Amino acid sequence: MGEQWSQLEQQFMDYTKEMSQYEEAIGLMFWDLRTGAPKKGLEGRSDVIATLSQKAHEMATSDEMKGYIDELKGNTNDPIIQKSIEECEKNYNQYSKIPSEEYKEYVLIQSKSEAVWEEAKEKNDFEMYRPYLEKMVEYNKRFAEYWGYEGHIYNALLNNFEPGVTVDVLDEVFPKVRKELTHLLQKIQSSEVKPNPSVLTGEFPKQDQQNFSLEVLKRMGYDFDAGRLDETVHPFAIGLNQGDVRVTTKYDEADFRTAVFGTIHEGGHALYEQNIDQQLAYTPLAGGTSMGIHESQSLFWENFVARTEPFWKNHFDLFLSNAPETFRYVDFYEFFNAVNEVKPSLIRIEADELTYCLHIMVRYELEKALINSEIEVKDLPELWNNKMEEYLGVRPTSDSEGVMQDVHWSGGAFGYFPSYALGYMYAAQFHSAMKQEIDVEEIIGKGNFEQIRSWLTENIHQYGKMKKPLEILEDVTSEKLNPDHLINHLTEKYQKVYDF
Amino acid sequence: MGEQWSQLEQQFMDYTKEMSQYEEAIGLMFWDLRTGAPKKGLEGRSDVIATLSQKAHEMATSDEMKGYIDELKGNTNDPIIQKSIEECEKNYNQYSKIPSEEYKEYVLIQSKSEAVWEEAKEKNDFEMYRPYLEKMVEYNKRFAEYWGYEGHIYNALLNNFEPGVTVDVLDEVFPKVRKELTHLLQKIQSSEVKPNPSVLTGEFPKQDQQNFSLEVLKRMGYDFDAGRLDETVHPFAIGLNQGDVRVTTKYDEADFRTAVFGTIHEGGHALYEQNIDQQLAYTPLAGGTSMGIHESQSLFWENFVARTEPFWKNHFDLFLSNAPETFRYVDFYEFFNAVNEVKPSLIRIEADELTYCLHIMVRYELEKALINSEIEVKDLPELWNNKMEEYLGVRPTSDSEGVMQDVHWSGGAFGYFPSYALGYMYAAQFHSAMKQEIDVEEIIGKGNFEQIRSWLTENIHQYGKMKKPLEILEDVTSEKLNPDHLINHLTEKYQKVYDF
Repeated sequence: MGEQWSQLEQQFMDYTKEMSQYEEAIGLMFWDLRTGAPKKGLEGRSDVIATLSQKAHEMATSDEMKGYIDELKGNTNDPIIQKSIEECEKNYNQYSKIPSEEYKEYVLIQSKSEAVWEEAKEKNDFEMYRPYLEKMVEYNKRFAEYWGYEGHIYNALLNNFEPGVTVDVLDEVFPKVRKELTHLLQKIQSSEVKPNPSVLTGEFPKQDQQNFSLEVLKRMGYDFDAGRLDETVHPFAIGLNQGDVRVTTKYDEADFRTAVFGTIHEGGHALYEQNIDQQLAYTPLAGGTSMGIHESQSLFWENFVARTEPFWKNHFDLFLSNAPETFRYVDFYEFFNAVNEVKPSLIRIEADELTYCLHIMVRYELEKALINSEIEVKDLPELWNNKMEEYLGVRPTSDSEGVMQDVHWSGGAFGYFPSYALGYMYAAQFHSAMKQEIDVEEIIGKGNFEQIRSWLTENIHQYGKMKKPLEILEDVTSEKLNPDHLINHLTEKYQKVYDF
Repeated sequence: MGEQWSQLEQQFMDYTKEMSQYEEAIGLMFWDLRTGAPKKGLEGRSDVIATLSQKAHEMATSDEMKGYIDELKGNTNDPIIQKSIEECEKNYNQYSKIPSEEYKEYVLIQSKSEAVWEEAKEKNDFEMYRPYLEKMVEYNKRFAEYWGYEGHIYNALLNNFEPGVTVDVLDEVFPKVRKELTHLLQKIQSSEVKPNPSVLTGEFPKQDQQNFSLEVLKRMGYDFDAGRLDETVHPFAIGLNQGDVRVTTKYDEADFRTAVFGTIHEGGHALYEQNIDQQLAYTPLAGGTSMGIHESQSLFWENFVARTEPFWKNHFDLFLSNAPETFRYVDFYEFFNAVNEVKPSLIRIEADELTYCLHIMVRYELEKALINSEIEVKDLPELWNNKMEEYLGVRPTSDSEGVMQDVHWSGGAFGYFPSYALGYMYAAQFHSAMKQEIDVEEIIGKGNFEQIRSWLTENIHQYGKMKKPLEILEDVTSEKLNPDHLINHLTEKYQKVYDF
């Protein structure tokens, strides 16, 4: 393809390749910091990351970049270059529309705000954190005005994380999801079936958890010649280049679920990045198209593969052969039901498959109202607690396990949370579409997931950022975002588990 | 100190800090490539390294750098800035004196030459390699002329690796060392004592070797909060920043010596980098002052600490507690003598403490004659084999284990080999000086090496590149380079082991 490029096109692609290379170096340093870099080197390393990030940022906002955008936009025959230009333009606008002095101020206050949040959460002191959160909200409101938007002001922020998704889209689906899920939750809570998660806990050596996790990753089609599995505190997957997409996990020797489901989840993210079309390598399109589509991939493997009955039927022997002897006396369905226990709790990141989306609704409604000046930061703790009680039936007794539990807002990330719930909906909708083409349950039951992985690659992975999230969704499923798939999936699943 | 800097001085120090930051990112990528990066990502990663190296190179040879050198050289009150300028000027000259087209050609042929060497070594085909080696010699001769020199042309190359050391210096000491060592070797070979290295070999699980190595590293004073130990194929130590100096090692489960002495050797390099004065962090002076002084540090710990009788007397129980049961029946002196066996062999990197320097003499004499046009590449194999027979009493039967065994020349690194032998001499000379101040044997016998580590830090480590190699040597030992220290050390040692 390079042969057909004009000189200008070639220059542009070289320019963006260099930007990707900075990102790759930064990515490796980030991975290293999270997987064992010695602590005395952290400060210097963070400065190196800052310097290289600054270089990449300068390239993204340079006059040279502006020149490429002006000259190549709509003026190239290569679709990869056209989409790359659009991606670069989006980033260019995001930064260049904010006065640079204001952006510098913001970056300074942002890192202060994150540090204060950490301390305030530790001390359960919302008042300490409040002025910083207020600033973060203020900046985001102003930035939204700079960026511009149609309709609701919050759309400007959503666009950063889930391009094409608007308040209109969310408000059409979220209330329905919330209503159906709370309804489902009530049924579950009135069921006489009470899964017993204690059958899952108890001493389980790290090495054995790792052996099982590695085997599942392999069966998922994760390419170990293009990645590796390491231990960390807050697990993540990271694509450094398409031949080096790493997975990290955390081992809790008292509860294997952390590592096993965590590895599968991150493995789902990694499969996405490993299978992007090679033609997109080192272009601005060589990554997942949105946070929500990325999450749909991790959730697909975690919930639609690894929490299913055929999965465990097929893998139970392998699991037991790696598990401590005590597990051998556990009944299969006792085990399976425990893996799918629903239990409303205060903390989002510990939530089960059903209540997770309700945690997101709380956040979405509050942050939308904050950005739209309908509520004030000072009222957040009370509003948060009320919504938690209304949607999940649990009420935080401290702000640390309430409004201060997540880092996102402290760093100014408003508009991010909806992507998590969208990930659940996308995954369910992909699952329905996949079932029309292949016998998913049977494939899972055979323990060889190649057909599933290749369906996801063909329909989703390969495109990288060539398609926008809703474009992928509609191309693959032939319908618009439809929450019924998630609702049906959860209803069917819990009907079986909770027998209602 | 920064407060007293002029604006120009501050700009220069910021500029060189940024250069160091590129080097740090490159260093981490290098470490990662050697310790487990997935193979499908290698090609992309190598390109990232090339891009960042190019940035650092551009900064080192820019007009801005020239400006700093012109304006600040001899015109600053800060000794750190003065030495930094000198270091930068040296690098600036090294590159800028070579016409840039010629340098680009060289870099291309260099990487080709290394690849051809690898294949030719594999196939034992010197003729295949010869034209590349001839080119590498030619380039080095031309570069030497560009760089300029006093006296012997080879001095221009020596200056790249061991600044201040000249042919005159080497030719005063090397022949004496060679004569005395070959004499010593004859005595050893006529001794009736025949150490039995088979008592050291045999199954030794990796984990147990690692446990023992980690304990020794800790006792050496290696700071694990500022480093880590990983596995690799060709072991090295690397300073990323002063709070992150990593050691790598290789485990041979049939021979613990590879990992144990290897880790101690690399640990010696790492202690140097961990203990450079914090004031030099992120300046051009934040590294070892020369390859020879660096090697003196690794060799000090390997040979003057870890191959001594008091070391093993103190560590034998710890060693046995980590070793397989078979080792418990080995007599201490049988063990100790085997650890110090002398046995001339064909391969430099497998050589013992005595014959190693003889391998270096062969290389030094040949490369000096090559650069000075006294001999030709085509005659190298024969000349090499003759010298090996003369100095070590062994004659290679193939060029793969003869003149083609080392990578150095294939990459154009002429003038590098002498540093290895200098490292032995420096180490011995430091050892003599240290013994005048502290009771080294007694300290080693107690198994707590803090006094040794702090002596090395105070006298050597802390200075980084603030002092040139011979300046350090003379400041610490109050005499010029004196090979008698090495000769005496080896004579005393082997008199005991071989009882002559």
